[in-house]
Amino acid sequence: MRIGAIEAGGTKFICGIGDEHGRIEDQISFPTGHPDQTMPQVIDYFRDKGAEAIGIGSFGPIDIRPDSPAYGYITTTPKPGWAHYDLLGTLKHAFPVPLGWDTDVNAAAYGEVKWGAAQGLSSCLYITVGTGIGVGVYTEGRLVHGLVHPEGGHVPTRRHPEDHYPGRCPYHGDCLEGMAAGPAIEARWGKKGHELPAGHQAWEIEAFYIAESVTQAVLLLSPEKVILGGGVMQQSQLFPLIREAVRRNLNGYVSSDAILTQMDEYIVAPGLGQQAGLCGALALGLAAIDKVQS
Amino acid sequence: MRIGAIEAGGTKFICGIGDEHGRIEDQISFPTGHPDQTMPQVIDYFRDKGAEAIGIGSFGPIDIRPDSPAYGYITTTPKPGWAHYDLLGTLKHAFPVPLGWDTDVNAAAYGEVKWGAAQGLSSCLYITVGTGIGVGVYTEGRLVHGLVHPEGGHVPTRRHPEDHYPGRCPYHGDCLEGMAAGPAIEARWGKKGHELPAGHQAWEIEAFYIAESVTQAVLLLSPEKVILGGGVMQQSQLFPLIREAVRRNLNGYVSSDAILTQMDEYIVAPGLGQQAGLCGALALGLAAIDKVQS
Repeated sequence: MRIGAIEAGGTKFICGIGDEHGRIEDQISFPTGHPDQTMPQVIDYFRDKGAEAIGIGSFGPIDIRPDSPAYGYITTTPKPGWAHYDLLGTLKHAFPVPLGWDTDVNAAAYGEVKWGAAQGLSSCLYITVGTGIGVGVYTEGRLVHGLVHPEGGHVPTRRHPEDHYPGRCPYHGDCLEGMAAGPAIEARWGKKGHELPAGHQAWEIEAFYIAESVTQAVLLLSPEKVILGGGVMQQSQLFPLIREAVRRNLNGYVSSDAILTQMDEYIVAPGLGQQAGLCGALALGLAAIDKVQS
Repeated sequence: MRIGAIEAGGTKFICGIGDEHGRIEDQISFPTGHPDQTMPQVIDYFRDKGAEAIGIGSFGPIDIRPDSPAYGYITTTPKPGWAHYDLLGTLKHAFPVPLGWDTDVNAAAYGEVKWGAAQGLSSCLYITVGTGIGVGVYTEGRLVHGLVHPEGGHVPTRRHPEDHYPGRCPYHGDCLEGMAAGPAIEARWGKKGHELPAGHQAWEIEAFYIAESVTQAVLLLSPEKVILGGGVMQQSQLFPLIREAVRRNLNGYVSSDAILTQMDEYIVAPGLGQQAGLCGALALGLAAIDKVQS
């Protein structure tokens, strides 16, 4: 099979073509411009690829309610041209094949369930920590949509007792994204994350905030796997710090071996690495075929 | 149809019999004693009722993983006799009919979806605030189980800036339950909740903590309805305070009319009132028949 995949990010688009086993055969990437410029690039890429379906994991907020008149649209975004843009409709017009459509982070969660660190599980949480923070949620064998879609990057958290940084989320100030996304690290310490040494206090504080949100999610949702991806999580010294903070937060309350004794396999990096988003989009495309046939 | 329902609480058991429309025809209640005493009472009640199925919503933690050797057990509890007790097996032995089994709060959430405030929706959050705090989660048309089951009563929250009460959760101190369950209200103010006047600062502080957990859940899960039940929520002055605090927390970020303009219908009391738990158990029994037939 030949399935198309689009990781539609606010900074760059990645388009690829792959098969039903999650193997990406070819991919390209270009910066996200105005849709009048970017969408023709997307369509050009797929024109001769013979995709039987295309899956899209998109930056948001987006409309993923199938019964909504704005289904397939990016809704409110400050990015020029993209607010109320019918991304799915534009693709459907160009390629009359089954299309899968979800948030970029739900796509990544789904990719990890199909072929990555959560393979075969019926639930997982995917958190990406980069320029922003996004959360994909998969429970009981399904991606969570609900009223809008998860926006777990903006949860309120307790503050680290030694951290006096005010936070930089324009909506919430010191929510998770305001305190722990890449730009918050840079603003707090005057240096980009990758310029700070592994032993710097920055990482203990960063781990604290991520662990707060993981703790909330573990208690509320009881996921079978917690996957942490994105640029900031390339700092692998964060993983043991986050696991330790989550363990301290839960304090033995959730009585599961996964948490009590196997935390190293419970909170993990994406099995698909940097390809989680693109493979997830591929998985959405594959699922769109199944949906049409059912 | 005649369906049995058991709301197995840590303080009392409620047993009832009803029909496929959620109508409870008869019910009794007795204090939760040692299982050797309580379970025969349960079995006696149902002996001549002709139940075609029985649903159980139970206090926990419980094992709800169908592939687990301890499926149907209450797992760890300080309640004498109930730790590692095979509640479901005991019932199955007495009544060879389809049995539904879930947490008390998942049952209540399910009852509300079937016949209450979340009727027809594919997602809802049910929070009960009483002697303890429990959270039931229904997403994408299914009750959430995952690794263990949701334990959302114990999420960490920010502290109210004027509240110096240390919290009374033996595991976490100032988690949601430690700060906002009935016993915390009594310990903080030296009076039971129902003895405090409606205008007392206690309610603004109580609303603050509940709103923290609702905000976390709205951002992480995007439920279509948030239902708040339990003894403490009988203080109806809490509802407008909670809605206002959630609105303030979200600050316009979640762009949905349900939240921006219809909060009064978004965060609500149980449509089934005090019967949410028992009706939910009934709904679990009904679903168990469907499961056997499918």
